[in-house]
Amino acid sequence: MTAGDVLAERLPETVRAALLAPLFDHHSCPVRRDDLVRSQFELLIGQAGAPAPPGTTHFDTPVGMAIRRWCGPVLGLEPHVSPAVYLAARAELGAVEVNRRLLRAAGVVAFLLDPADAGPDVLSVAEMGRLGGAAADEIVRIEEVEQEIAEEGPAAVEYIGELYDELAARAVRAVGLKSVAVRHHGLDLDPDRPTRAMVIAAAGRRLADPKARLADPVLLRHLLWTAVDVARDRGLPLQLVTGYGDADIDPRRTDPALLTGFLRAVRPAGVPIILVGCYPFHRRAAHLATVLPHVYVDVGPTLAHACAGSAAIIGELLELAPFHKQLFGSACRGVAEMCHLGALFHRRGLARALAARLDRDEWSPADAARVAHMIGSGNARRLYRL
Amino acid sequence: MTAGDVLAERLPETVRAALLAPLFDHHSCPVRRDDLVRSQFELLIGQAGAPAPPGTTHFDTPVGMAIRRWCGPVLGLEPHVSPAVYLAARAELGAVEVNRRLLRAAGVVAFLLDPADAGPDVLSVAEMGRLGGAAADEIVRIEEVEQEIAEEGPAAVEYIGELYDELAARAVRAVGLKSVAVRHHGLDLDPDRPTRAMVIAAAGRRLADPKARLADPVLLRHLLWTAVDVARDRGLPLQLVTGYGDADIDPRRTDPALLTGFLRAVRPAGVPIILVGCYPFHRRAAHLATVLPHVYVDVGPTLAHACAGSAAIIGELLELAPFHKQLFGSACRGVAEMCHLGALFHRRGLARALAARLDRDEWSPADAARVAHMIGSGNARRLYRL
Amino acid sequence: MTAGDVLAERLPETVRAALLAPLFDHHSCPVRRDDLVRSQFELLIGQAGAPAPPGTTHFDTPVGMAIRRWCGPVLGLEPHVSPAVYLAARAELGAVEVNRRLLRAAGVVAFLLDPADAGPDVLSVAEMGRLGGAAADEIVRIEEVEQEIAEEGPAAVEYIGELYDELAARAVRAVGLKSVAVRHHGLDLDPDRPTRAMVIAAAGRRLADPKARLADPVLLRHLLWTAVDVARDRGLPLQLVTGYGDADIDPRRTDPALLTGFLRAVRPAGVPIILVGCYPFHRRAAHLATVLPHVYVDVGPTLAHACAGSAAIIGELLELAPFHKQLFGSACRGVAEMCHLGALFHRRGLARALAARLDRDEWSPADAARVAHMIGSGNARRLYRL
Repeated sequence: MTAGDVLAERLPETVRAALLAPLFDHHSCPVRRDDLVRSQFELLIGQAGAPAPPGTTHFDTPVGMAIRRWCGPVLGLEPHVSPAVYLAARAELGAVEVNRRLLRAAGVVAFLLDPADAGPDVLSVAEMGRLGGAAADEIVRIEEVEQEIAEEGPAAVEYIGELYDELAARAVRAVGLKSVAVRHHGLDLDPDRPTRAMVIAAAGRRLADPKARLADPVLLRHLLWTAVDVARDRGLPLQLVTGYGDADIDPRRTDPALLTGFLRAVRPAGVPIILVGCYPFHRRAAHLATVLPHVYVDVGPTLAHACAGSAAIIGELLELAPFHKQLFGSACRGVAEMCHLGALFHRRGLARALAARLDRDEWSPADAARVAHMIGSGNARRLYRL
Repeated sequence: MTAGDVLAERLPETVRAALLAPLFDHHSCPVRRDDLVRSQFELLIGQAGAPAPPGTTHFDTPVGMAIRRWCGPVLGLEPHVSPAVYLAARAELGAVEVNRRLLRAAGVVAFLLDPADAGPDVLSVAEMGRLGGAAADEIVRIEEVEQEIAEEGPAAVEYIGELYDELAARAVRAVGLKSVAVRHHGLDLDPDRPTRAMVIAAAGRRLADPKARLADPVLLRHLLWTAVDVARDRGLPLQLVTGYGDADIDPRRTDPALLTGFLRAVRPAGVPIILVGCYPFHRRAAHLATVLPHVYVDVGPTLAHACAGSAAIIGELLELAPFHKQLFGSACRGVAEMCHLGALFHRRGLARALAARLDRDEWSPADAARVAHMIGSGNARRLYRL
Repeated sequence: MTAGDVLAERLPETVRAALLAPLFDHHSCPVRRDDLVRSQFELLIGQAGAPAPPGTTHFDTPVGMAIRRWCGPVLGLEPHVSPAVYLAARAELGAVEVNRRLLRAAGVVAFLLDPADAGPDVLSVAEMGRLGGAAADEIVRIEEVEQEIAEEGPAAVEYIGELYDELAARAVRAVGLKSVAVRHHGLDLDPDRPTRAMVIAAAGRRLADPKARLADPVLLRHLLWTAVDVARDRGLPLQLVTGYGDADIDPRRTDPALLTGFLRAVRPAGVPIILVGCYPFHRRAAHLATVLPHVYVDVGPTLAHACAGSAAIIGELLELAPFHKQLFGSACRGVAEMCHLGALFHRRGLARALAARLDRDEWSPADAARVAHMIGSGNARRLYRL
């Protein structure tokens, strides 16, 4: 299999080259470094956080099919081998070689990585870059910084200052900030910056139980506004995770349109804000990116799971979103297969959208190649100043 | 016309055979047994519960087009004859023969039927099976059982016990339970089991006007929780109707994501819950089926109405939902045409999704055939233990 | 380029002719009459109300691509010329000739125009018709009439009577009414007609600051109900703008399903109500048009912006909406390019949906042609009695 096989459409050579060019992956997490048994692997490719019901398997999902089809050959197998054969080959090659092959197959030139869930079993940022043959920079997850500060046990009044200072200190070596408030509470937060008195009162409660995961809406708002301050002062973008995810997230509180008031309120700060995920509300995110100059959109986390169904999602995003507002993120997490699939289905889905426009004489090949380049790497380079 | 004509795509023979294999129809209602004049027929194929505006007809809808195209030939007519010619042929053949032909044309091996709307003009469960050449079993609609108990006039304290006892008694000869709380109130119900005191208080009010349709949210919650108890004790699945339906249902209260809290709360009971309908929120239902091990999804009621537009809906469902979580229901109701169309557009829409995956080298033919079998009958057989 | 080029699909000649037949454009606004510099032009084709971020352009959007592809040739250019070349040709021809060419290229037989945003730089209703070679009639925007009355400074009790009288007076020479309550407040309005006392109290507050834009929900409700009265008395339809628009509109308050209660409440008046826009909630609007006999739907405002992405939106509308309930509106506004694109992508998108149905043997050519005619002009002629 050659690299070119990833595109199913006939396309002019310039468009093909633009789609196959190295991608700038602005949103990923480091993957597991250890060998995984089947039950572990199934948990990491599913989104339920639980085994599949008796008599079924998480391989009977879009992502399971795609792993057998597209990751198998990267491990030297025929396409479509059984899960057992796939996992046997994976074990035989060993995690280091598997990660190296899959991360390189993704064709990524730079990773921006959120290492907040790291641990002894997870690669470091530098290792991800080395294995993937790519540059690797860090994105700071703001809720993790807050957790560390809370556990240090400051007084409530100190907590506020330490939050800014620590985020600013981390921002020195990072290239962006990221919030997963959607996981801690949901996006139905009041848009305005809370008063100092409100924050101190809430911090007092928070610091009485610092090991708990932050869920207080006042503190989450304060954290978001502090992140905007730091991002403005350091010239960094802020990623906001939205849309459906795993079983922990309440699907009723993930619509990026819930952020409308916040996005409007922080517009004067001039901080680029990237809505990440967004599915099944990606048309709403595209609208926000259309009407608000500082808002961007990346549906990567969905493509990596929808796989063969990705093209329709990309098509819906392209209905409204300006081409200079769309970013590529592989949304890699857990296993390196997700990185390869995220990159692959970005390329395949965008290829289909472009081919449809070329076949129907809507766009010129030069414009199609230009848009592929913008979404694949150009917009991220401009935004992250790399 | 041969049976094979129902698939418009070129497909490998194994996939074709899997799509044309008999379907397990887990969600239908018995149809009218009498001859119908045009105004009756139009009301039954429309969703407005009212005649079409002056100068228009309910035949100028996706389902009207599909009846002329696909049901005409089953009655011995050319495709696309006018509504008048179609209805004349229908009258000439007579309702028994029409029902027999259309139900058989659906290619169903087993019907699970909700006979709650039955009356003298509607076929029995046994007659549906006999005419359709299929097994036929009963699904108990829990709101109908409640209505019968309420009208018997028990004291409020007895009402609670009778609800469980009667549901359990019905469950002995039934194969599943079904709730249409979406029609009685909407899905915006508190998730938790109401206290006994709350139920008794609400039952007191309810029993003062027992002929009224149940709309009290406390009693509907109690009924749902009682259904979960019975389903658990008897090893049965529970169907929950969601999404858009006819004019009686408030579209703002039909999103299956409103059930998130309830679905999480009842998860420990281990009862399989099937979200039926779901449109236009089917991506949300697919997400729930992805993250919650006990949740399943069936978009049949929409396919039977969207007809030629069904393929996109099936495509959206396949973006996320595990293949072992999808079920087929023809959603037959009113007239036997709906059974034929529900089955036909399941097959045609799924054929299109599978052909797209095969043409783009995403899935193997063996996997495509396996998925067609799972959704068409395998999952239902496992779930309903038939 | 010949007119026929606008359809990319092979279609039977009758279907082709029906798609290319003159359109009845029931929803447009007059366009700018003056020559525009690039910054002005970009603002008018974008939806942000602000320049594109540094290093980007509003031409890198679906509509920008479509202008270069489809409007260029109307101005005598090759397809896909650069924005600078396009705008130079536009300036050289002059606004009158540009408007004449683009409005005629749209192939519209009648415009229904909302001139509420008119001013010295905007064409009159009569000029739009003359330049476009079409009949031109007026739609009354009810919020503009209210603004004029408020600024005249009546007493609160007089305000109520004057509202009805002035709307009725305007309705004599108009062919329909239109509300943009979505822009003034959002669609989350109580459905019922407010009491006279409520209206007088709210009018008192309103009239203390009559220059402000109406945003009071009680007065907006009263205005809507008064519009229904006038529409009923004069036999006119009422357009309700819904769905996403520019940056001023709160996306959380635009879902047409929010109007469910109001639509049900006004049903007895027998006034046809057309939901205009609706994206990304167009499936919800289609449902309302399916279950409520007096409700119609037009997604034109989205097609004019989604351009090459329009076909999927039309496909989703056709899943459920009766064919006699769909209308064409080019949603022209700002520049005449939008009129050409609105008409073009209606034709191209519908062509694709019809071709798919013909290719898969779902519809007959005669039915396809008939549906194209109904949506393109027949339904509007029936509804507006023109």
